[in-house]
Amino acid sequence: MKELVIEKVNQAVSLLKEYDYDMWITFAREISVSPDPILDYIFEDNLTWKSAIIITADGDKTAIVGSLDAESIERRGIYEVIPYIKSFKEPFIKFLKNKDPKKILINFSKDSPIADGLSYGMYLNLIEVLKEAGYEDRIFSSEKLISSLLGRKSETEIKLVKNAIDETLKIFDEVTAFLKEGISEKDVASFVKSKVKERGFGYAWEEEMCPAVFAGPQTGGAHSGPTDKVIKKGEVVNMDFGIKLNGYVSDLQRTWYILKDNEDDAPEPVKKAFKVLIESVEKAASALKAGVKGIEIDTVAREHIVKNGYPEYPHALGHQVGRNAHDGAALLAPKWERYGNLPFLPIEENMLFTIEPRIPVEGYGVVTVEDIVRVKKDGVEFLSSPQKEIILVRG
Amino acid sequence: MKELVIEKVNQAVSLLKEYDYDMWITFAREISVSPDPILDYIFEDNLTWKSAIIITADGDKTAIVGSLDAESIERRGIYEVIPYIKSFKEPFIKFLKNKDPKKILINFSKDSPIADGLSYGMYLNLIEVLKEAGYEDRIFSSEKLISSLLGRKSETEIKLVKNAIDETLKIFDEVTAFLKEGISEKDVASFVKSKVKERGFGYAWEEEMCPAVFAGPQTGGAHSGPTDKVIKKGEVVNMDFGIKLNGYVSDLQRTWYILKDNEDDAPEPVKKAFKVLIESVEKAASALKAGVKGIEIDTVAREHIVKNGYPEYPHALGHQVGRNAHDGAALLAPKWERYGNLPFLPIEENMLFTIEPRIPVEGYGVVTVEDIVRVKKDGVEFLSSPQKEIILVRG
Repeated sequence: MKELVIEKVNQAVSLLKEYDYDMWITFAREISVSPDPILDYIFEDNLTWKSAIIITADGDKTAIVGSLDAESIERRGIYEVIPYIKSFKEPFIKFLKNKDPKKILINFSKDSPIADGLSYGMYLNLIEVLKEAGYEDRIFSSEKLISSLLGRKSETEIKLVKNAIDETLKIFDEVTAFLKEGISEKDVASFVKSKVKERGFGYAWEEEMCPAVFAGPQTGGAHSGPTDKVIKKGEVVNMDFGIKLNGYVSDLQRTWYILKDNEDDAPEPVKKAFKVLIESVEKAASALKAGVKGIEIDTVAREHIVKNGYPEYPHALGHQVGRNAHDGAALLAPKWERYGNLPFLPIEENMLFTIEPRIPVEGYGVVTVEDIVRVKKDGVEFLSSPQKEIILVRG
Repeated sequence: MKELVIEKVNQAVSLLKEYDYDMWITFAREISVSPDPILDYIFEDNLTWKSAIIITADGDKTAIVGSLDAESIERRGIYEVIPYIKSFKEPFIKFLKNKDPKKILINFSKDSPIADGLSYGMYLNLIEVLKEAGYEDRIFSSEKLISSLLGRKSETEIKLVKNAIDETLKIFDEVTAFLKEGISEKDVASFVKSKVKERGFGYAWEEEMCPAVFAGPQTGGAHSGPTDKVIKKGEVVNMDFGIKLNGYVSDLQRTWYILKDNEDDAPEPVKKAFKVLIESVEKAASALKAGVKGIEIDTVAREHIVKNGYPEYPHALGHQVGRNAHDGAALLAPKWERYGNLPFLPIEENMLFTIEPRIPVEGYGVVTVEDIVRVKKDGVEFLSSPQKEIILVRG
């Protein structure tokens, strides 16, 4: 992963220049207990005591850390290390005074978890020191920098996500062959997990709900785990699943229909809902390109579904993927309080978004798809081969 | 782990009463990206959107969460769930107004990472809502509650740590048989890792430095990983190592001496330093009991070492262990800025502490031991069978 860290650290230097900030400080401690999630991208070692990982617009990379943490950071050669034994304050203030930055970014954000890694107690510690240095009025949120740093994927990163997607699609094909009436949601999940284990993959999110499997009407919400519910003919089955492979994840959904003995196709209500679902994906994908805002894209899909008489999906249309299943900051989401400003952040080239509407079909289950697109200057490219038809299973 | 969660949640209710607070709010979101570490102890599910996990002195346990996270929390039956779709604010304010708490704990601490899980951005969000409810002046740090909640181990927890210790000591015995001149620090680490893997254990801290192995003079700091340095006769070797077993960890150190062909014992400088080291452990252990402060215990050991002409160790004498290698809040540490108030927190019965001084021996290496004690009303009990003599290896 060292190449990826170097790539991101250098990208951070460029972004500081692009956005006209002088310095970015990630202030953390005891990260094995309480990690700042952005460190995964720019740093590879442990931090035990109060530590500042500092990147500046002039290209300096500096780590002010407790002495016992110093050696392995030095060995990697990415950061210049300033070790301390008793007190963080003196070397930190000395460093600041020397650089005299006018605009300093720190990791807090009301809306973006990945840009909000500074804890409140650590904020209080930092402000105390910055006051002593007379710099307390020079701090700004790193949200915009982090949104671009994580959002703008390199070709290497896109390839890694694509690999995870390809392996996930293979498992979906195997699920199609495995599905039948009489097995439970948990049986299907166990089958998927056996493939994950056999192939040495990780999970894109917590294992208990990865995959999430939903069969028939009265199924759980999108974030609950599979149950003992047995799959019956005439039911819609869907799955939300992603793997982690070489540090990058997939996050995809597929929908199946278990045919009754006398059926050759899904019933009309299921087909109609699925058609509207796919149309909503296509309309959203057509509208998505660099420069638009997430709320516009969510609205396109949401309105199409509602206009056709279905309830709106109770979540965002899509999120970014990368190292995490919910990656980056900008979201394809409605203007709901719970999403804060994320639907309004600019969408940039090479961001990777899921598109994942859902429609409940009374008496059958819920139809969903989730595919992943790469944002380009004038449109999108699907990284997953998108589901266009409900998959029929002769169960 | 459900029993342990119920145990901790009920312990939290008792502690709220004992310390005279009305309510404890853990306010979190997207915890797979940005977790509040205390949630591991009191909660088992995922949280995606702004969520409040609330425990009150009158015994109520409530989770106000995004609707898609609700079902699996409900299934466990520990928390009463209040789900929301668009906005967290309304159900949260309604709940607060109904309870009308006078003193509310939230998770921030300038000194204790485990009690500092609230991010600064989330703090800003919380304060905004509390202001709207008129409750912004009723908040306090949960540090004291969390220090006792994690520190006061139950018998079940002590047994789990003891199991991890016992398995670690077995591996140390195997290392004694494996050690010889000509193998590298990395070879020793690989041997230990093969045992960990074979037995299905986890690591107590990041794998790259677990175990940490140091051979001879000019070795790295306590927090750096093993190197290609080859072990020679006449060198001191030590190891810092811990496993995770059933969710609880060990953290122990042992020191070996590789005999030269003409030696039957370690040389005088090594023996003398090791004797002083063990005396410092014994003195610290004799002074440790419920009610003292960590700084007093650190001082006993540190002064004994310095009095004997050795440099003081550049870290704390000991920390708590439990689910993490650095567990709880109270520390056996000196009054250094980097430890904040942790050396001054009260030491309570059933806290588990490491005792781990170190002494460099010019030309030979560093002698260290690390054992784990359980604090009792009037003294301590060693959970690990403590190292008293340097282990001699005929290499």
